[in-house]
Amino acid sequence: MTPGKLFLIPSPLGETRLGNILPENVQRRVANLRHFIVEHPKTARLFLKQIECHRPLQEIEMQILNEHTRFNEIEQLLAPVFSGYDIGLLSEAGCPAIADPGANLVHIAHQKNVTIVPLVGPSSIFLALMASGFNGQNFHFHGYLPVKDDLKIRAIHNLEEQSAKMSQTQIFIEAPYRNQKLLETLVKYCKDETELCIASNLTLESEYIITKSIKTWKSNLPDINKKPTVFLLSNSNIF
Amino acid sequence: MTPGKLFLIPSPLGETRLGNILPENVQRRVANLRHFIVEHPKTARLFLKQIECHRPLQEIEMQILNEHTRFNEIEQLLAPVFSGYDIGLLSEAGCPAIADPGANLVHIAHQKNVTIVPLVGPSSIFLALMASGFNGQNFHFHGYLPVKDDLKIRAIHNLEEQSAKMSQTQIFIEAPYRNQKLLETLVKYCKDETELCIASNLTLESEYIITKSIKTWKSNLPDINKKPTVFLLSNSNIF
Repeated sequence: MTPGKLFLIPSPLGETRLGNILPENVQRRVANLRHFIVEHPKTARLFLKQIECHRPLQEIEMQILNEHTRFNEIEQLLAPVFSGYDIGLLSEAGCPAIADPGANLVHIAHQKNVTIVPLVGPSSIFLALMASGFNGQNFHFHGYLPVKDDLKIRAIHNLEEQSAKMSQTQIFIEAPYRNQKLLETLVKYCKDETELCIASNLTLESEYIITKSIKTWKSNLPDINKKPTVFLLSNSNIF
Repeated sequence: MTPGKLFLIPSPLGETRLGNILPENVQRRVANLRHFIVEHPKTARLFLKQIECHRPLQEIEMQILNEHTRFNEIEQLLAPVFSGYDIGLLSEAGCPAIADPGANLVHIAHQKNVTIVPLVGPSSIFLALMASGFNGQNFHFHGYLPVKDDLKIRAIHNLEEQSAKMSQTQIFIEAPYRNQKLLETLVKYCKDETELCIASNLTLESEYIITKSIKTWKSNLPDINKKPTVFLLSNSNIF
């Protein structure tokens, strides 16, 4: 028996037609799958309804992988592969395993010699980086900055320093309900000449991607409260 | 007159059907464009032939942006936008402005208040990161490592150290004709337990993505000579 493959399936970043964000062939491959590993079954079902699946949703088998999944439970999620079935790993939004669960599963899949097939689709981090106008030859994604104010301010100063020293684009995110607070902190503590790109609601009708200096942002902050946002910072013009 | 927009268009990573790597809507948007900024007109024309363009190729206007373009020549590439036309910025392979020219153009476009629309498509760096099984919450893309042997070896040790200290995935590339040499150097100078993901020919029939420890790679190096490859290194199991 040939073992199945592990397909890594990017998912929409918000409400949009699948034809806007997934290649035809990716949709077709997903439509053929019966086994999925998902973060939230409810949003996964909404996604699969949009794909014209080749079987009724009741026949789809979903296993859950999220922040509560214990490390020793991960390996058994791959069981269908060894019974000859392909599995789709579906993220909550964007690319699995990038700022999202899944990396541990993929790591174990490599140890078990499973063929891994990453599919093309939206990544908010990459769309933001492309559109920021900052250095795309050297960049660093940090995930979330520290929550505590003093640590966060220190982290922001480090980002500025690293960017200036290495001509490096600094990329980070925040829980959407804390976006506005982070933006205010950035504008308060960054240097006037540091540039900040705010990339919100990517791929949606309401997409907003603007790069300005901190000094210019100060006089006119956008409302990004609860809007999924990628922040990019640059203190270097050499690239 | 409404100014045009700047569309950032990802392009194929090798010979493949466009339906494999570009959403339908991205293809449709590109088909409507008349003005392009490209790295190499010849490959750009091959790409546009695959898109079912709404006008003959002779009517398409292409301007060139590459490593020889001087900084003070970049702004005028945006002229069509101010005459009301949309422009497509087309990379040689993958996403414009990510490990590819274009960031300067996008930066100037922000200064001129041009609306920038990044389109969804393949990025070898992100496909590789998703499929590596390494930390996708903290990663650093370095572009090319130094060419000189002593500097390269020092850089490799720094990558290992950074990865261990910060649980950080280190991502880098090489000119394809030097891939094999870099791989040999990595295997020679990295620690046995360091893990290396080799991701070659992404999105193509011959796609190859394998993660193993340096110790395991030692006994069986793949032939990646002249195959476009992303290298990912991790010296951390905590993510």
